[in-house]
Amino acid sequence: MALWVQKYGGSSVADAACMMNVADRIRRARDEGHQLVVVVSAMGDATDDLIELARQVNPDPDPREMDMLLATGEQVSIAILTMALHRVGVPAISLTGPQAGIFAESVHLKGRILDVRPKRIWEALRENKVVIVAGFQGLDSKDDIVTLGRGGSDMTAVALAWALKADRCQFFKDVTGVFTADPRVVPDARKLDEISYDEMLELASMGAAVLQSRAVEFAKAYGVPLEVRSSFEDRPGTLVREEVDAMEKIVVRGLAADKKQAKVTLLKVPDRPGIAASIFTAVSKANVNVDMIVLNVSAQGQLADLSFTVPEGDLKTALEAVRKVVPEVDSAGVTHDADIAKVSIVGVGMRSHSGIAARMFSALARQGIDIQMISTSEIKISVVISKPQADDAVRALHREFRLDRGPEPAAPAPRRRRRR
Amino acid sequence: MALWVQKYGGSSVADAACMMNVADRIRRARDEGHQLVVVVSAMGDATDDLIELARQVNPDPDPREMDMLLATGEQVSIAILTMALHRVGVPAISLTGPQAGIFAESVHLKGRILDVRPKRIWEALRENKVVIVAGFQGLDSKDDIVTLGRGGSDMTAVALAWALKADRCQFFKDVTGVFTADPRVVPDARKLDEISYDEMLELASMGAAVLQSRAVEFAKAYGVPLEVRSSFEDRPGTLVREEVDAMEKIVVRGLAADKKQAKVTLLKVPDRPGIAASIFTAVSKANVNVDMIVLNVSAQGQLADLSFTVPEGDLKTALEAVRKVVPEVDSAGVTHDADIAKVSIVGVGMRSHSGIAARMFSALARQGIDIQMISTSEIKISVVISKPQADDAVRALHREFRLDRGPEPAAPAPRRRRRR
Repeated sequence: MALWVQKYGGSSVADAACMMNVADRIRRARDEGHQLVVVVSAMGDATDDLIELARQVNPDPDPREMDMLLATGEQVSIAILTMALHRVGVPAISLTGPQAGIFAESVHLKGRILDVRPKRIWEALRENKVVIVAGFQGLDSKDDIVTLGRGGSDMTAVALAWALKADRCQFFKDVTGVFTADPRVVPDARKLDEISYDEMLELASMGAAVLQSRAVEFAKAYGVPLEVRSSFEDRPGTLVREEVDAMEKIVVRGLAADKKQAKVTLLKVPDRPGIAASIFTAVSKANVNVDMIVLNVSAQGQLADLSFTVPEGDLKTALEAVRKVVPEVDSAGVTHDADIAKVSIVGVGMRSHSGIAARMFSALARQGIDIQMISTSEIKISVVISKPQADDAVRALHREFRLDRGPEPAAPAPRRRRRR
Repeated sequence: MALWVQKYGGSSVADAACMMNVADRIRRARDEGHQLVVVVSAMGDATDDLIELARQVNPDPDPREMDMLLATGEQVSIAILTMALHRVGVPAISLTGPQAGIFAESVHLKGRILDVRPKRIWEALRENKVVIVAGFQGLDSKDDIVTLGRGGSDMTAVALAWALKADRCQFFKDVTGVFTADPRVVPDARKLDEISYDEMLELASMGAAVLQSRAVEFAKAYGVPLEVRSSFEDRPGTLVREEVDAMEKIVVRGLAADKKQAKVTLLKVPDRPGIAASIFTAVSKANVNVDMIVLNVSAQGQLADLSFTVPEGDLKTALEAVRKVVPEVDSAGVTHDADIAKVSIVGVGMRSHSGIAARMFSALARQGIDIQMISTSEIKISVVISKPQADDAVRALHREFRLDRGPEPAAPAPRRRRRR
């Protein structure tokens, strides 16, 4: 008998009919003999509706009160799902985050989980009950409710799976798993049977956001096996797990395009210590998250352009912040471009295979696609190109790396796999 | 500086505009120098909407899960009202029932308050904050949320007023106070400036339900001064307080009609010990609350009819229960009548004034109104009449006892006031 943690997102529990569907799925998993702890998000648009209600009385609501408000969304979900389970004959009990023993730091709207003490969960499991836990919420040291920020329910599920030493942590989504590319763009995109944590992280941080990065990072750190699968179809999904040697045979696991980025360029920045620090301190103070940064100084003491990308919606704020430091850093000026996309290929096999970047750039060149920025990590290569060419680029790369065909046979690895 | 507990019902906080109105009222009370603890119900129809959602997944939801669900209604209210207060510049903090230290027995959907340990309320008051508390909910010994049943928010307010030794417990309603009769029926019905707990109880149990009986009983037992006033107008309401001698000068304080009752009659019941017990045990087991009971055996060993009234909606259940015991008690059969109304006059002055019943019955007779049942208590006389005549009866009695004119001059009391 295995212990599984399952997590259902808002679209999986959007209304009473969805709830009955989820209840039925839980019932079947239980009939197979598994012990189940189920984490749920708020129903459908419930959280957005609560935020709208708050704005009607206060455009700048207090974070503590916002948490008090938002936590009700998940509390409604757990009660309704538990009632639905009773309806189909499954003994079940609902627990709020605090009741489930989720303790969080006292930072409202974005608390991090500090500890999990699942005493009541164990008690309920011993009574042969399915335990339904409210995601996205915990208790702080002041006995106040704290929500866990974007993707907080994923975090709840992984933390519980860790604390309970669950055999698997399953995420039920409106997709059937993790794909080699966005199936809406690449019709022959293929569902992956497995993927490493690192690959998943690179994909998650890139708009193919199936799971929240924080949850994947935590799972990687503590070795919690994850599975992404569909809440509407009954088929195996994608396993996210520790990297194994066999994984290296796959050079490129998948690719993704992020069309919601904008590029900012500081022209002719002098090569002087502290310049980059000044610029990114200013941007950071404006609460803008910078993604790619590219600087290429050709020779010491030369002037060079410095480019970086930010979320599209933060472009205006980022430009304001940067313009203030232009005189200070002696830059010749600032340009920007919101009409860009970032396209990335990801795979742990890249560590042991050379020539991947060259193949990527050649494939793009053959499509007449100009590359504006390049950034690489050990298992990822990202390029910034013109946004209208993004879908073409994704299709070309999907073909180039034969992602439609499953594992590409790789040449024997010329060197031992490195660890970071 | 006085400490006031205020309670706002669902219609007073139905939407964002109502919330701003309540926030403004609280701000003004605070500007006058009062410390405030405010209890709120769920917004408008929120509770009904949650019940409907539950029914969609389970027609017979588990009480514990229902409490988990329903408690969110008040939690939304306290967060929104607190945000509205911040908007108008009032420092405030919201507390759930459990956070406010409301401890209840572990009976879901109708828990009774066992204890109030308002540590966090005192802390917040010391920080000069207005404290917004979720009504209708408490924590049981299992760390589960329990709701307090119908009128539970009134109960929360009175219990807090008691625990905090508040100077007053104010109830903001969609009426301006307690009236001598229903103003929709009697156009010259008059708002009462004060009323005793006992009078209020007799009125509350009769459909003039301005405050929940349990809350009034608790207030009476612990001497918590209550005030009923309008949440929309800024005028003094009705004070509910300990009876004082002066109150006895008012013979009839007010009157009320309850049109939602039905009458059940067992015909020719033999006069034998244990008969009434059999009948009402059967009715009670069917979970039907009996209101009036009238039995009048003319001579020992004779047959007599036994009549009682029940809430209209429980008539079918009551009849089923009674029909089962008809053979056992040797009754000649059962009749029923749903077309009745109970009309009552209430006043502590009745204790020391005779002839009130006679005046009541005469006034009704002059209107051609036939009396079917009579029941009296020390401070109340109730009659059951035909429902279509109820409004006429109320108007005739309002005139008879000159309730439109304010305190009726009473003859010098012929005897000392009795205590029960």
